[in-house]
Amino acid sequence: MEGPMDTAPVNPPPRLLMGPGPITADPRVLRAMSAQLVGQYDPAMTGYMVEVMGLYREVFATANEQTFLVDGTSRAGIEAALVSLLEPGDRVLVPVFGRFGHLLAEIGERCGAEVHTIETDWGTVFAPEQVEAAIVEVRPKVLAVVQGDTSTTMCQPLADLGEICRRHDVLLYCDATASLGGNPFETDAWGIDVATASLQKCLGGPSGSSPITISPRAVDVIDGRRHVEAGIAEERDVARGVRIASNYLDLAMIMDYWGPRRLNHHTEATTMLYGARECARLLVEEGMDAAVERHRLHGAAMLAGVRGLGLEVFGDVDHKMSNVVAVHIPDGVDGDAARAVMLEDFGIEIGTSFGPLHGKVWRIGTMGYNARKDAVLVTLAALEQVLRSGGVAVTAGGGVGAAQEVYA
Amino acid sequence: MEGPMDTAPVNPPPRLLMGPGPITADPRVLRAMSAQLVGQYDPAMTGYMVEVMGLYREVFATANEQTFLVDGTSRAGIEAALVSLLEPGDRVLVPVFGRFGHLLAEIGERCGAEVHTIETDWGTVFAPEQVEAAIVEVRPKVLAVVQGDTSTTMCQPLADLGEICRRHDVLLYCDATASLGGNPFETDAWGIDVATASLQKCLGGPSGSSPITISPRAVDVIDGRRHVEAGIAEERDVARGVRIASNYLDLAMIMDYWGPRRLNHHTEATTMLYGARECARLLVEEGMDAAVERHRLHGAAMLAGVRGLGLEVFGDVDHKMSNVVAVHIPDGVDGDAARAVMLEDFGIEIGTSFGPLHGKVWRIGTMGYNARKDAVLVTLAALEQVLRSGGVAVTAGGGVGAAQEVYA
Repeated sequence: MEGPMDTAPVNPPPRLLMGPGPITADPRVLRAMSAQLVGQYDPAMTGYMVEVMGLYREVFATANEQTFLVDGTSRAGIEAALVSLLEPGDRVLVPVFGRFGHLLAEIGERCGAEVHTIETDWGTVFAPEQVEAAIVEVRPKVLAVVQGDTSTTMCQPLADLGEICRRHDVLLYCDATASLGGNPFETDAWGIDVATASLQKCLGGPSGSSPITISPRAVDVIDGRRHVEAGIAEERDVARGVRIASNYLDLAMIMDYWGPRRLNHHTEATTMLYGARECARLLVEEGMDAAVERHRLHGAAMLAGVRGLGLEVFGDVDHKMSNVVAVHIPDGVDGDAARAVMLEDFGIEIGTSFGPLHGKVWRIGTMGYNARKDAVLVTLAALEQVLRSGGVAVTAGGGVGAAQEVYA
Repeated sequence: MEGPMDTAPVNPPPRLLMGPGPITADPRVLRAMSAQLVGQYDPAMTGYMVEVMGLYREVFATANEQTFLVDGTSRAGIEAALVSLLEPGDRVLVPVFGRFGHLLAEIGERCGAEVHTIETDWGTVFAPEQVEAAIVEVRPKVLAVVQGDTSTTMCQPLADLGEICRRHDVLLYCDATASLGGNPFETDAWGIDVATASLQKCLGGPSGSSPITISPRAVDVIDGRRHVEAGIAEERDVARGVRIASNYLDLAMIMDYWGPRRLNHHTEATTMLYGARECARLLVEEGMDAAVERHRLHGAAMLAGVRGLGLEVFGDVDHKMSNVVAVHIPDGVDGDAARAVMLEDFGIEIGTSFGPLHGKVWRIGTMGYNARKDAVLVTLAALEQVLRSGGVAVTAGGGVGAAQEVYA
């Protein structure tokens, strides 16, 4: 029997990741991550941290000074935001339109908050008036909302929510994990107080670092929960709120690590920072509007392509994220078996689904490095073959042809 | 003025990191981290997860089934352990012999635990009888102790503590962040219930992933705090304790993600996993005893070398970790200015210090990839020059010569 002693160097099989994320990383991001380390307080390192803050201000479309990385996956960023904003007993309102809304509610409960939810059918989004009515009823401290929920592919319109939240003196937190970089996102113009994201969706990097941005009024709330040793306390350190229940995800401490005080907290994950920096650098070089347009184009091509294959698209297509589409698995096709053939014979991963959609839809992504014409066309070509061998009547070339028309 | 648009690709200056960590990563680890991604449930990925579990069982010297990675820096691993073990009101005892003992106490407080500490002077460790006496008095649920505290360089003997803890029905948590791989560590033989570590010290990788191992009796405690949806609950899921306050660091959920149930939690940080896997793979290939001996040898050479330079070593040298030494900054020398010359002119980083030792000692590491003869000798050669130019009377060749004698 083989044991740990016989483990070979890592050598992953070639995959084109066309699911809802993680997706294939941009090779330039992986190259950046192979750079050698520097010390935690090396001037080169603190310089990189300052650059990362500037780059993510562009990505989030914000002037927020407090824009940096949480060291963990996107879920770490979500929890850092909620545990740092919500005190036990605070009310939080979560509009739930898919699995990740349930996650926000669950994390809010763990924070000891009084969680209120409103729900809408999977495959739909909320109208601003529905959210405002719930705000009037619940009077929450925080409205916590997902922008793009990959479980349903829906993209909740946010442009009106910031103004509503300000009118009712509510803080607006947005989970932009799956959407940022591939769909319009305007932190300042939309009045979003805290937003968090990930690298492994439209940013073209690996999971493991969560960019975050925090408005001055949210900073004020979080700063008030800082409890520090008397010796280093300043005016801003006088605690007005309940201490944040996490040390690792205490945004007040993390702000002091990234900010001019440079107070030691965790040891920054240098390689992930190199990767996050390169993700943002490439996006900013391309231009955020151009990146969003690229996702729109290739998402439209994939949408046309799956329809050209005769597949029925799930949900309210007008409110779909650009970067992922869910299609009903045709009658008589074993969805997981077909996905396995796509993976094993063609080297292409497409996604399964959760909860009420489990076994009913596939989710196909076109995001980050894989928001590309060749990735779209080869996926449609392979899917045509797999559907045909599964006994589905498919027009030869119908998927690729429809996508090509979008590109024409 | 330059803006984010002008940010250049990452290109860190060449550094030899001889501080208390992070240290220069093994180039083989960085190469492993440049491998392309696979999907979260790709058979290749779940295969890597299984391999990682096996490799870290070797590294931790344990048969614990529950041995895996927490996605975050070493501090995430520490907090995951404490928040998953400690319920509000539980008593935890922390023997504090440096900065990281204070961190365990602080995190325990945030968990709502009743935290009791015993303290010893910086530069010393505890005798087992001192710890047992405190256990008898406090009757804690958990004893939380650091093995190697880089703030003082001390290495707390642990061999007797497991037996003491079992006798008094106490769970033993150990923070092995700075020590694992470079000093003897025997999870099972010493009766340690939960241990956490990091990559950026003796394991030769970057910060950002925290290996953890959990004994069956600790698993039982953690399992009892699992609250899951009724639909997927099994016998083991019936909650007996207070729900874990964190979702991201909920070890019950993370065990279900790494284990055969493969329940979706966070999206594993693939690139960090590749790195963590390679760190352990290289250690296991070398042999854990050989790795510990390598750290002993190069640590002894550095110790002899700094003494050969006439520097006074801080603390109880018999209880020093192999992989780091603290030396008093000679009178008249500006410690930070000397470190800056080491970094800027010689490309070598040595460490500053915290708390009561700030400005009084430098900390010099020999760990992971830098537990090597050339790294030791070039550091001593450079330090001799910097001390001389700072007006310190140094015997020419005294440091390198003394280290060479250790190697002879």
